[in-house]
Amino acid sequence: MRVMQKATRQQTRAHNKRLILKTIYRDGEISRADIARSTRLTRTTVSHIVTELMDDQLVIEIGRGPSEGGKPPVLLSIPPLARQLVGLDLADSEFRGGVIDLRGNFQRRASIPVLEQNGDEALGLAYGLLDSLLDDIQEPVLGIGIGTPGLVDAHQGVVRQAVNLDWQDIPLRDLLEERYGLPVFVGNDSHVAALGQFTFGRIQGIDNLVVVKVGRGVSAGTVLNGRLHFGDGSGAGEIGHVRAVENGLLCLCGHSGCLETVASTRMVVKQARDLARRNPRASINKLVEAPEQITTEVVLQGVQAGDSDMCRLVAEAGRYLGKAIAHLIGALNIEQIIIAGSMARFGPVLLDAIRDTVEPRAMGALVSRTQIDLSDLGQDIVMLGAAALVMSSELGVV
Amino acid sequence: MRVMQKATRQQTRAHNKRLILKTIYRDGEISRADIARSTRLTRTTVSHIVTELMDDQLVIEIGRGPSEGGKPPVLLSIPPLARQLVGLDLADSEFRGGVIDLRGNFQRRASIPVLEQNGDEALGLAYGLLDSLLDDIQEPVLGIGIGTPGLVDAHQGVVRQAVNLDWQDIPLRDLLEERYGLPVFVGNDSHVAALGQFTFGRIQGIDNLVVVKVGRGVSAGTVLNGRLHFGDGSGAGEIGHVRAVENGLLCLCGHSGCLETVASTRMVVKQARDLARRNPRASINKLVEAPEQITTEVVLQGVQAGDSDMCRLVAEAGRYLGKAIAHLIGALNIEQIIIAGSMARFGPVLLDAIRDTVEPRAMGALVSRTQIDLSDLGQDIVMLGAAALVMSSELGVV
Repeated sequence: MRVMQKATRQQTRAHNKRLILKTIYRDGEISRADIARSTRLTRTTVSHIVTELMDDQLVIEIGRGPSEGGKPPVLLSIPPLARQLVGLDLADSEFRGGVIDLRGNFQRRASIPVLEQNGDEALGLAYGLLDSLLDDIQEPVLGIGIGTPGLVDAHQGVVRQAVNLDWQDIPLRDLLEERYGLPVFVGNDSHVAALGQFTFGRIQGIDNLVVVKVGRGVSAGTVLNGRLHFGDGSGAGEIGHVRAVENGLLCLCGHSGCLETVASTRMVVKQARDLARRNPRASINKLVEAPEQITTEVVLQGVQAGDSDMCRLVAEAGRYLGKAIAHLIGALNIEQIIIAGSMARFGPVLLDAIRDTVEPRAMGALVSRTQIDLSDLGQDIVMLGAAALVMSSELGVV
Repeated sequence: MRVMQKATRQQTRAHNKRLILKTIYRDGEISRADIARSTRLTRTTVSHIVTELMDDQLVIEIGRGPSEGGKPPVLLSIPPLARQLVGLDLADSEFRGGVIDLRGNFQRRASIPVLEQNGDEALGLAYGLLDSLLDDIQEPVLGIGIGTPGLVDAHQGVVRQAVNLDWQDIPLRDLLEERYGLPVFVGNDSHVAALGQFTFGRIQGIDNLVVVKVGRGVSAGTVLNGRLHFGDGSGAGEIGHVRAVENGLLCLCGHSGCLETVASTRMVVKQARDLARRNPRASINKLVEAPEQITTEVVLQGVQAGDSDMCRLVAEAGRYLGKAIAHLIGALNIEQIIIAGSMARFGPVLLDAIRDTVEPRAMGALVSRTQIDLSDLGQDIVMLGAAALVMSSELGVV
């Protein structure tokens, strides 16, 4: 049982400040009177806090709106560049970072390829990326957000285990806060992606959302009632290590037949290479000199050219994803499911296989109201989500 | 994006009243001074509200506690019979109801068998049950809670679809409020069961919990951050209609191979009868005169006597449940999973099969911290949950 506590005056003030900022952010431009109406705060409270926000250069007056009888009211707005956010995506075959404004526009981008680094080297790469992003930066930076693969204790900012990066119990937040003197927030890449979709995605005004991120690995992020669901051990959404095939391949996690072993870019590429080796006349061989040169990019070229082998491999992965998503629908009944990550680049070939597989595999009344779509944020979703994590924590506007 | 609103004075007062009541409920007995300390409300506010609660006869003074230096403080408590709750379970082959005190003790019980009634007759049975429970009742009744199978719009109190009861869009709350003049709350049986487990179950002090209820059907209820998760369409937890078997049996829902077709008492009984017919020498035949007489009760006798056929059938159902639960663990990472419903009566034979199946089928780091247990509330779980629904809504103490 949870015990609520009475708000102290200081908490009330902080709460009201976030409330007002959120109202301005959501509305885009709004008068003090409308803020008071919308938040039910008194005009005096609104005026005081708006003055504070203007002193902080978070809010500006942008002119006058239409009159409602009397003098036309002054409209307030948050300039997108009032603060900048640094978002990092450490979940793919390259580390990517961006300097992002408060509306999700990229001001800078940088990336560094990740090869077979050990843990310290991977950390060095993250430093290098941040150094270049923050170098000689003008506008004030609100903080750094990071999406990393693996199990992340978001409250402590510690990466508990990221096999691909050879990280174990890395206190990433503390390390980066010390180095850069900025607030740092760390989250699992799929959790962060879900927050990115929720904040900057096409569909707004919903409370619940699942993002299934499929790239080298598979995992899901869930927004419930407007907040990320982490799970008791920060492992919510680790669907990539639920068994998808009996007597399947050994997975990096030590179990066998995990969803990741049948539905990830890694496996699609592996299967494409196997096929190219087995059948020298396979048309995918026309795109490369040797099977080892087949990458996700090459498979994508094949799919886009209508190569039936490649389409079949991708659709097969989609069917496994569909089976797992049917379970998500049964468990959660969340009606917005978004497919993100590098596999989403395969487009309708993947999406149609997912949808067709889900349809007969969960309760009709639920499936008929569930939308499964590809993310509109493309490969930026984790960086945007990492930026949203900073905005959410520091400004409360998400 | 959600917009918070400033609390009005009236809301604040109602909030504080619930907060104080919750604090007294949780602590069992507590002084006004300790309430003020724990809630951070002023002593004056606490005194005023406690006086109101005493006028309402919800709270009484029960004597003096140990002195902390000065005069020993007066201790306050909520008498379990300060209010009574009516809880109904409409999810099984009989309708069951109880009059329950605020600590989950049954004051009365009643039940009516449900045969192949049509929707109106089923409603008539529910009326009959409530009539007998409420007849000549002495202590004040706070309200009626109902757990029903099927899709329930808990906010509207409408049963959208309950195939077994032949109910479609039945405004159960309004019907019962009109008939009995008491507040009525309606929920899906598994959702209600989860609330019952959360409120009255053995394990206290947790925020998250999943109850998988397996009886004639299979569904799950989830408590997240101390609140029931309903899902966008009130259908969260409908795991019984996620496909468990390819090319499986046709399900009542119109799809095939649903979990319910392989892991429910209905299916275990059906398989036991099939086996008894196929093999007249099967030892289950010694317990009945004809295969058609085999019921859940008979299978249970067999299991308890170590009948290897019956144990095998139950374990098989457990393995299907285990596969579905592995998906729940991957999706939610909730570390307390409770098996309830009539299948839970099969005890360790079922539970061991579930645990063994889950173990290699979800991420090791999550599984190792997940507890899967049988409910300690037995067949009362839905009635207790229905009572908790009333307490939660009317008093805010859950």
